[in-house]
Amino acid sequence: MEINQQRIKKAQALMRDQGMVGIMIMNRDDYRFFFGETRVQPRAIIPAFGDPVFICFKAEVGELRAALGDQQIKVFSHVGEQMANVSKTFRKLAEEFPEGLSPGKSPLKVGMQMWFGTPAFLVDLFRKLNPDVELVPSDPVLDELRMVKQEQEIELLRKAQSIAGLGMDRARELLVPGITGREIATEVTYTLLKAGAEGTSTPLHINIGVRSCWIHGKVDDSAIREGDLVVIDLTPMYRGYCANLARTFVVGQPDGRQQLLVEAYLEMISATREALQPGVTVGRLDRIGREILAKHGLEEYHLKGISHGIGLRFEETPASTIMPAHITVKLRENMVMTIGHTILAIPGFGGVRFENLYRVTPEGGQILFDYPVDFIVG
Amino acid sequence: MEINQQRIKKAQALMRDQGMVGIMIMNRDDYRFFFGETRVQPRAIIPAFGDPVFICFKAEVGELRAALGDQQIKVFSHVGEQMANVSKTFRKLAEEFPEGLSPGKSPLKVGMQMWFGTPAFLVDLFRKLNPDVELVPSDPVLDELRMVKQEQEIELLRKAQSIAGLGMDRARELLVPGITGREIATEVTYTLLKAGAEGTSTPLHINIGVRSCWIHGKVDDSAIREGDLVVIDLTPMYRGYCANLARTFVVGQPDGRQQLLVEAYLEMISATREALQPGVTVGRLDRIGREILAKHGLEEYHLKGISHGIGLRFEETPASTIMPAHITVKLRENMVMTIGHTILAIPGFGGVRFENLYRVTPEGGQILFDYPVDFIVG
Repeated sequence: MEINQQRIKKAQALMRDQGMVGIMIMNRDDYRFFFGETRVQPRAIIPAFGDPVFICFKAEVGELRAALGDQQIKVFSHVGEQMANVSKTFRKLAEEFPEGLSPGKSPLKVGMQMWFGTPAFLVDLFRKLNPDVELVPSDPVLDELRMVKQEQEIELLRKAQSIAGLGMDRARELLVPGITGREIATEVTYTLLKAGAEGTSTPLHINIGVRSCWIHGKVDDSAIREGDLVVIDLTPMYRGYCANLARTFVVGQPDGRQQLLVEAYLEMISATREALQPGVTVGRLDRIGREILAKHGLEEYHLKGISHGIGLRFEETPASTIMPAHITVKLRENMVMTIGHTILAIPGFGGVRFENLYRVTPEGGQILFDYPVDFIVG
Repeated sequence: MEINQQRIKKAQALMRDQGMVGIMIMNRDDYRFFFGETRVQPRAIIPAFGDPVFICFKAEVGELRAALGDQQIKVFSHVGEQMANVSKTFRKLAEEFPEGLSPGKSPLKVGMQMWFGTPAFLVDLFRKLNPDVELVPSDPVLDELRMVKQEQEIELLRKAQSIAGLGMDRARELLVPGITGREIATEVTYTLLKAGAEGTSTPLHINIGVRSCWIHGKVDDSAIREGDLVVIDLTPMYRGYCANLARTFVVGQPDGRQQLLVEAYLEMISATREALQPGVTVGRLDRIGREILAKHGLEEYHLKGISHGIGLRFEETPASTIMPAHITVKLRENMVMTIGHTILAIPGFGGVRFENLYRVTPEGGQILFDYPVDFIVG
């Protein structure tokens, strides 16, 4: 475990700006960001001043204390009890805040991550057990810290993406008529894990034939037929960082519509990549994509959300398909974004996607790992 | 896709008993239960009367309509729009309810699953966009339908558990000093997928040495040393049904404390298994476990939650470590329960678990798949 004091200090300054007494961490990615480790059921409090407070089950106290070393850190013995006492803990911590900064008797504003990993019933329970706490999204603190990536983070994303590339190589060589999505997924998963992936941040997508239309994806026992579109999306994680590599293949010779979809998509990526500069919004990127599709007569198939942030979480700010307000977030230099998040699909026919990771620079998106677009197989 | 009309009819009767206008399905397991298929981002409404309403993205309409065949089913074109209009849809559906059963102008009571798979921000959004809907847990409907298993469900759970057994065989043969948890996990994952698993419902647990204390588990690069306790928990899914097989191994000769923990755990399982009869509560099972541990002088290490329901979801009712109120739920014949959910751990030393699936019968728990307890390796 490596407690990142610099990140904690920056987060605390932001919490104070936001009037938060602290943030409650219950997610893998925030925990890893501050403490350098992936813990199952991560639970910690970072108050606006002072040291973090770790929370763990009784059986795990000895192991956690050993990992924490000499740090002056409180360890609680029971999560249920602790959940019920979060407001009390924050109030006690706040008593030690420097004079004039104590929140007093008003409701305590506590930040928490509110994305896919935070279950509704836990939040409902938290609110019920802590009626004097106002729970707010921790994004104003964490986004500021996490959106722009440090060099070492970019290297880890590049490494994750290169592992995805090995998986895609394996998938491509297996693409022959008769093989099932599940058979491909089994071999690709094995390749990813052997190459050092810690698992994947989403299930593999191996979307075959008409199911290449899917926005999301899955794996099943349907077999590939000659002429099928196959969309493959791989999301291995490496030291907590998430890859996102999608490719579309045609098994055999593409027909005119397949060819058109691929060409339009690649043109959309190219234009979006050029625009991936500081100051640009993802809303602007979507409009660029729409213009390209309109040129090809495909505007009616346009979907919003061509690009999203990525890092320790598979989708992070800006991620406009999850948080619509992100459409106006301005890109900054050294953010890492995907391009190719949305499917370009003709309902009932099929769809295509090609997705890569890019660093935002004043010269446009700089690709992190340049995996070939080589979509005709066999 | 196979729409199970019988289950829908039973669910509708229960909804009417509960005064619900319908349930909103947003989870893999409920969707699979009613419609026989795993869909990514499953979205459907089952009203208290009439046919289900499916919701899907525009790009997926063609594919979904083909899968649904001749069914008279409405397909919506936009999820965001639909989320915003759920109450309108329910109100419209309710207008067609038989006379006297319309909920009129009062708040519409809509059921939704509220477990780990339902994110807080979606529920918050739902509540904001549908202020005239009272969102309630759908458990009173779904539990009634899903707790007691049909024969074909028990066969699928047995099959899932047998796949876990193949994974455990593979893990056991790899257990030698020097191998890492990650190396074992890579090979075991490959074995599970090759044997037909659709993935796992939790990450693999390969908890080594002092980390065998963990309540939950993970995989990392730490290597096994002679004398280590290793707790392995495998949760492959087969046709949507979840396995749960845990074993503890000692690499080399166990010391006295390791031996004591294992013996006490096995005795706890044996006593719990005998008591796994209709009418018994999981609270009672926990008390039985505590008595056994007290006899061995290990009472202080007792944790609640020795047993939980399992089926299409990894933990389903009763699951008292998630939903404390379940402690009083009475078992019924042909429910399937795990025994061995909790760790028996001495903090800072290590822990043990052995977990299997059992059918509840008047003669006690009937094991679904009898995998050996053979804990000394090498």
